[in-house]
This record gives sequence, C-alpha cells and structure tokens, in this order.
Amino acid sequence: MIEDRHITLAHGNGGRYMRELIDEIFARHLANPALDVGLDAVPLELDAGMTPLITTDAFTVQPLEFPGGDIGSLAVNGTVNDLAVSGAEPKFLTLNAIIEEGLAADCLDRIVASLATAARAASVHIVAGDTKVVPRGQGGGLYFATTGVGLRSPECQLGMDCIREGDVLLVSGPVGDHGIAVMLAREEFDLSGSVWSDCAPVMPFTGPLAALDGVRFMRDPTRGGLATVAHEIAAATSKTVRLIEGQIPVHGAVRSVCQMLGYDPYYLACEGRVVAVAAPEAAETVLGLWRDLPGGEDASVIGIVCEGREQVILETEIGGERFLEELEDDPLPRIC
Amino acid sequence: MIEDRHITLAHGNGGRYMRELIDEIFARHLANPALDVGLDAVPLELDAGMTPLITTDAFTVQPLEFPGGDIGSLAVNGTVNDLAVSGAEPKFLTLNAIIEEGLAADCLDRIVASLATAARAASVHIVAGDTKVVPRGQGGGLYFATTGVGLRSPECQLGMDCIREGDVLLVSGPVGDHGIAVMLAREEFDLSGSVWSDCAPVMPFTGPLAALDGVRFMRDPTRGGLATVAHEIAAATSKTVRLIEGQIPVHGAVRSVCQMLGYDPYYLACEGRVVAVAAPEAAETVLGLWRDLPGGEDASVIGIVCEGREQVILETEIGGERFLEELEDDPLPRIC
Repeated sequence: MIEDRHITLAHGNGGRYMRELIDEIFARHLANPALDVGLDAVPLELDAGMTPLITTDAFTVQPLEFPGGDIGSLAVNGTVNDLAVSGAEPKFLTLNAIIEEGLAADCLDRIVASLATAARAASVHIVAGDTKVVPRGQGGGLYFATTGVGLRSPECQLGMDCIREGDVLLVSGPVGDHGIAVMLAREEFDLSGSVWSDCAPVMPFTGPLAALDGVRFMRDPTRGGLATVAHEIAAATSKTVRLIEGQIPVHGAVRSVCQMLGYDPYYLACEGRVVAVAAPEAAETVLGLWRDLPGGEDASVIGIVCEGREQVILETEIGGERFLEELEDDPLPRIC
Repeated sequence: MIEDRHITLAHGNGGRYMRELIDEIFARHLANPALDVGLDAVPLELDAGMTPLITTDAFTVQPLEFPGGDIGSLAVNGTVNDLAVSGAEPKFLTLNAIIEEGLAADCLDRIVASLATAARAASVHIVAGDTKVVPRGQGGGLYFATTGVGLRSPECQLGMDCIREGDVLLVSGPVGDHGIAVMLAREEFDLSGSVWSDCAPVMPFTGPLAALDGVRFMRDPTRGGLATVAHEIAAATSKTVRLIEGQIPVHGAVRSVCQMLGYDPYYLACEGRVVAVAAPEAAETVLGLWRDLPGGEDASVIGIVCEGREQVILETEIGGERFLEELEDDPLPRIC
C-alpha cells in the first residue's frame, strides 16, 4: 500500500490509504484485544475502589532515533512515568501520531514497533489512537502525543503539600543522560556518542515507594532536569532546597560533554530517573530498595529541604555554594 | 513575559518562560477547580455504575481560524463528539499543544480562549495539559491533540454489530459545511466565504438517542465525510448501503462551490453532524427529536442498509445510480 514507501498526504485523508496505514503499521504492532480501530471511543475497564489518574504529554524530539531510545519508546515511557511518580499503576494509553509527508515508511514502522515494545514492557494497553498527516515542511518528521490512565490506591498519600522541613531529596540514578544522548545524536557537535538515553519505565522504582511510610513526593526530572524539580519543590514549600554536588550521580561521559560545552547537568533531561522526597528516617529504606534494582546502583541522597526563603542552593564539591537559578532562556539543545 | 509577543523556543524548555506561557495563556483561560498545572497526573472523578469511555484526536487544520470556528473549538468538539456518538456524556479532556516558534501570542491567546469557551459549552473539564514548542518551519503554527473521557450508561447498546438489513440511515443536518468553510478560508480560490463551519458539540442530537429503542449506531461524518461513514457501515455489515441523493441535505452555497471546483460534498468533512442508523420504525421518532433542535431543521432519512455485496450506491436525483467509491487519493483540500 505505501507504494513508494513514503508517507503521503493521502495517508491522512480518512479514506483507504489511511486505513491501510493504520492497519499495516499501527494496528499490526499495537494489536491487542482491547484495540478496535473501528470505534469512535472505547470502554476502559477500571478496578472499582482504585482512583483513576490521567496525564498527557507530547513528544517532538529530534532526531527521532537516538542511542538508548526513539520517539516511540519515549512517548510510552514519558507518559507512564508521570503516572508512576504520582503513585499510580499505568494501565491504558491513547496515541496521536502527527506524521510529516515524506517520512520513510520504514522509519515509521521501526518507531511504532519500538513504541509497541515499550508499551508491553510497561504493561500498558494502547486502547485508542489517531493519525494525521501534515504537509512537508510543517512537521519534524513525526510527533506523538500520548495520554495515560492509571490506577492509584486510595491509601496512597503523595504530594508536594506533604513535604516538611528536614525532608531529604533522593535520586534513583545518574542525571542528564537523556539530554546529552539526544544532543550528541543530533551531530551538531563533532562528538561521538558514548552516552545512552536513560529512557525507561520507572515503575520498579516508584511502585515500592507509593505506600511506604515517610515518602512524601516523587517526580521524574524530565524537561528542565533536576534543578527544575528542585525549584518546583522550593516554590511549593516556600523553603530552601539545598543540593549537595558531590552526592548527585552524573556519568563521567555526561560530565565531560557538559564541561566541554558549558552545560550544567542539573538542567538536563532524564527520562528514566525518579526524584523522591522522604522523611530522613525513611531515606535508608528508599536507598536500599533502589540500589537493589538494575539501574539503581547509583541512587543517592542528594539534598534537603530546609528553613530559608524559596531558593535552590548547590553546595559545590570545593566547599562553596552557588544558586541554581530557575531555567529561563534556552541554554540547552531542545530534547523534547 | 511573552515580551515580543511571539512564542520562542525558550517557551518550551521547562523553565520560567514555559511556566509563564502556561500561566498567562493556558491556565488563565482554562482555569477550573480541577486543573492543577503543578501535577504530573490528576485524579478523575467517575460515577460508579457508569462505563468510562476514552477517545483521542489530533488537530492540524489550516488556517488556524476559519468562519464558524478555529483549531481551538475544533479540538474540543472533535473529541467530545466522538464520545457523544458512542452514547457517552463527555466529562474530561486532556490537551496537548504543539506550538511553532514565531506564532503570535495574540493568536494563541484567541484560540485558547475559544477552546475554553467550547469546553464550557460542552460541559467538559480540561484536567491535564502539556505544551511543546517546535522550531520555526517544523509546525503549522499550532497543533492540538485532545483526549476525552466520558461516561456511558451500561444499558446503552450501540454498535455497528447491531445494524440489521432494512435499517435506515439518517443525518442530523446539511453535510460538507466544515470542509468548504476551511477550504475557502485558505484563500487558494478567489471565492469569498459565505459558508460557515458546522463545528459544534453534537450532544443535543446524540443524548436523546443513546437509550432510544431501535437506534443501532451513531457516527459523526468528519474526515472522509458521509461517504466514508457509509463505507464503514457497508464494510462492517457486509451489505449494500444505498443513499438517496435527493434526501441528503447540502447547503446551496456548499453545492455551488462543489460544482464549481468538482468536489463531491459526500466526502467533505462535517464537525457538528451526526449520522445515525436506526430500525425503520424508529426513524420518525429520531427525525422528530432532531428537527425540534436548533440546527436540526434539515435532518433527514438519507438511505438504507440492504441486501447485496459490500458497496455504497447513490441513487441520483435524475433517477440513475452511481457508486460512491472508498476515498483513495486526496481529491479535497486538507481540512484536519
């Protein structure tokens, strides 16, 4: 059907070509008993007694494929992770694909296959979808938007309003891998890529914490990175967040690239890490749980919420202090 | 904040500019008690005993504003209508905005205001959202994706599998207005616009039918138009759908433009019409309900599902017959 193996505007017009695009690429990879491409809306089977949570995210990463992931795996993990850090078990996804005329069908096929693999790994069902084709020059090849529905126990009490002075911040692994991996893949710099995106589902890290005593809040440090999560915590609590540079895990290759190009790793996006805020007495339990997990070996207590005005201070390795300002202009290559 | 009154890449980076964009445009218009822009995922309050339904759609219409609507009102109505024709009452929406660098902030503001107005008119709450900014030349100014959640009574029995031979097709109003309105707004043709999009929520038309005896199925004829819905019915039932040209309401101005440019109105998109399939004995009740509604004055029985192979036949006004083929290549300006 996709005869010249590129997507054309006719694949978006609602007729036979569109049906074939959906059948041959999307439905083929995403096939599951719950997916009926002929329905306007589909029923969700939700367990009574659980609280349904919803979240949504769009994905516009360039390039579409990068070491450690692609826009397909990202579109799944980015959205299920927002449910996971909210204490929910992700159950369902919906998918929008905005495809640029001229995209190679092989590329689309690879990416949708990767998306399907990521969905299976995250145990979510893609229950509804929609494709649009935009004219050449009006898209970045492919954009996705995904909306996720998950279920949370009504006992789960997580939220920024639970954070107290003296609580500690923890991170589940090294920060900044995703941002640097995507930047290197863009080949704007003559640096070969030895950095892989951390793009992954975080449910192994969040699941055991959702009902753990003393865990106050979780968030995945994506756009804006760790520094932005720290600012959000400072703003919500009207307190000072102190981060300890020597405690924040950063891969050596990420650190090198940052030093070379003048980037600050604390503003770089992760796509498979969790920042948790916990009472100090719960910190060792969280660390123990996390360090036993693959990818959690470098989990660390990285800071504290303390008395003081709303600000984020980094205690540097040489014993000084610097403010981590709220991100303003765009000092980093675009990663989402 | 949006100092030169245009969107820049910095509005997408996750930092202060993005927060201000969200606060000053999105949160301001969409503000409702359920919208907390600081949450990763939000709880949905669903009535026990009702079946939750989900649907999703992306919107890439050009131009962004057209007579009778804009991409904002369309992003609400397109998605709530998919819930409505499925027999559900729309309750919640999530919103993704993919904004092209350089879009005028005033334009974005107008469109988000229109989106908010449409959401209030449809009685849906926008509970979660996400904004991305893509570089100049990688977007059509603004794309939206919306995901809708609605509630359907478990008694509601609608579906293509309920359709029987002898059932009739009805349409709630004239077809093709949206397609022609958008096309004329694009000013590719030197025709002044006397056609307005029919973009509107269809719940007044679908609500009374959802539990009505003899109503089998409803669908809104959007991309691909009435002919495509007829094809979907023919394919699902493996029967012949006969449409009666003299019975299909088409506004005079739409018909004129179609004749001038060689378009077939039966393939043109509507965004506020409903096609229903009903047992013949229910047809008068449906017509009566619809014709009493504003915009339903031209509701009509337009065809029948009958014995024969899977095909769509149009009985022409001059007494002949022609096949309405499945839409293949793109004979129409892009409208979505």
